[in-house]
Amino acid sequence: MPLLVVGSLALDTVETPFGKVEEAVGGSAVYFSIAASFFTDVRVVGVVGRDFPFKYIDKLSDRGIDTKGIKIKDGKTFRWKGSYDYDLNQAKTIETHLNVFSGFNPEMPEEYLDSEYVFLGNIHPELQLQVLSQMKSAKFIACDTMNYWIEKEKGKLINVFKKVNMVVINESEVRQLSGESNIIIAAKKIASYGPSAVIIKRGEYGAMLFTNNRIFLIPGYPLETVFDPTGAGDSFAGGFMGYLSNCMSFNEEVLRQAVVVGSVVASFDVEDFSINRLLELDYSRINERLKQFKNLVEFKEIK
Amino acid sequence: MPLLVVGSLALDTVETPFGKVEEAVGGSAVYFSIAASFFTDVRVVGVVGRDFPFKYIDKLSDRGIDTKGIKIKDGKTFRWKGSYDYDLNQAKTIETHLNVFSGFNPEMPEEYLDSEYVFLGNIHPELQLQVLSQMKSAKFIACDTMNYWIEKEKGKLINVFKKVNMVVINESEVRQLSGESNIIIAAKKIASYGPSAVIIKRGEYGAMLFTNNRIFLIPGYPLETVFDPTGAGDSFAGGFMGYLSNCMSFNEEVLRQAVVVGSVVASFDVEDFSINRLLELDYSRINERLKQFKNLVEFKEIK
Repeated sequence: MPLLVVGSLALDTVETPFGKVEEAVGGSAVYFSIAASFFTDVRVVGVVGRDFPFKYIDKLSDRGIDTKGIKIKDGKTFRWKGSYDYDLNQAKTIETHLNVFSGFNPEMPEEYLDSEYVFLGNIHPELQLQVLSQMKSAKFIACDTMNYWIEKEKGKLINVFKKVNMVVINESEVRQLSGESNIIIAAKKIASYGPSAVIIKRGEYGAMLFTNNRIFLIPGYPLETVFDPTGAGDSFAGGFMGYLSNCMSFNEEVLRQAVVVGSVVASFDVEDFSINRLLELDYSRINERLKQFKNLVEFKEIK
Repeated sequence: MPLLVVGSLALDTVETPFGKVEEAVGGSAVYFSIAASFFTDVRVVGVVGRDFPFKYIDKLSDRGIDTKGIKIKDGKTFRWKGSYDYDLNQAKTIETHLNVFSGFNPEMPEEYLDSEYVFLGNIHPELQLQVLSQMKSAKFIACDTMNYWIEKEKGKLINVFKKVNMVVINESEVRQLSGESNIIIAAKKIASYGPSAVIIKRGEYGAMLFTNNRIFLIPGYPLETVFDPTGAGDSFAGGFMGYLSNCMSFNEEVLRQAVVVGSVVASFDVEDFSINRLLELDYSRINERLKQFKNLVEFKEIK
């Protein structure tokens, strides 16, 4: 089943203790679509300025990603500048320039309207609602967000949550939004708005899936080299949704597997700056790490 | 197989966002021995002052814990005062009064010398070495430590590590000791000193077992109510070592199960102040949570 993503395409300047990149290709829709493309057909809706390095859109197309929904507008591409400390779990935003993204109006190409799996990347909740109103055929919709929208547009964001099947959110955001320090209580509060599944991303500590009062927990795949966590959340979501849409199902068993897949795909992303590692990846490497992951967490029943 | 623990018996004054206790019974040997007593026979070596509430020593004895090795000395019992913020992962020490513990000289009762499983709680590395030199029959020795000894007695501590089978250490301590921010590299460095297993405790995020270049990772058991993390590390170690000594084996399979057992036992400890929750616990509740834990982390293989 084709999977639709609406999100940003960006030029990121990122500094970590292990190096720096300037104006490297990034953005939620870019990370998401590459991560998902290992599993399913992906359609992208977003906007770039005339300064975007178009060969990267070709790279997406070459992977079979449908880029018809990427608009090119006069002006500059969205830019983000951030840094990470040794504690790679938290990004520090230094600068954000919305540029062409400030006037972003997510119009769906006609042929995208039948998308059954939809991911609403981290954009203004107003725009997320606008996309939602167009997706009449959607069977499973997930959304992401960020601290900025929780602070500025909490009401609208909760309206989005009421209309989606799943919310993907990180640990500090779920605490901020719910006003609860305990993450189970916080997850329950998000679930009470409507989504039948809530995923809490915990960086190197893995992820929690909360469904119908059931909890699934995994640790993060352990890595000796973490260069740049940028895009890890979107790579997680891409792997997750890609796997789900390929399975054409979203029962507990498939959701759990999808969390593992998302986590493993994200573990590759952080091994290099920008989308470098994802672009050189192939499915056999993902599959190998999925097997390693199983071995990492496996134990015999205790009688 | 009887399991020997050498550690502290203390009176703790603890404040968390959820309440406060004053001069409550605690200490590594106390938490450890109760946690281990669900699985095996335990022998305790430690020291208390005349002000220790002796009915608690009776409570240990009533559980079948051998308390012959607890010396009663003229003077006051070791006292610790600490607090925790909403981030319950890190204790803040407000006061430490060693009192009778400052002159602690761990002499083994004759009948303890045949102990095959030994846990060296967080005491001066010099004392840990002194215990080690007496335990000629030991088959599996594990040790704990803390930031204070890493800072003040690193050389002696590494000497301890050279002589034990396993080191149990928390995430910030392993970083401090190794000078490495990445915990896999940090764990490898600890392993290079000699122990064949290293366990890194990650608080609510679970634990990592590192053996012979194999990694086992589990998330923490998710709890809606966490009142007081004091003793969680020692309860983990007690559950772990208790299970191990009962299995009379320490291959990879058993070590992995023991990590799960330790984690589950520790999850009870934090649900109340002091040793309250551990004292009211029975094996069927532990067993029930072990089954829940299995369900929490289980997923079908991904093809």
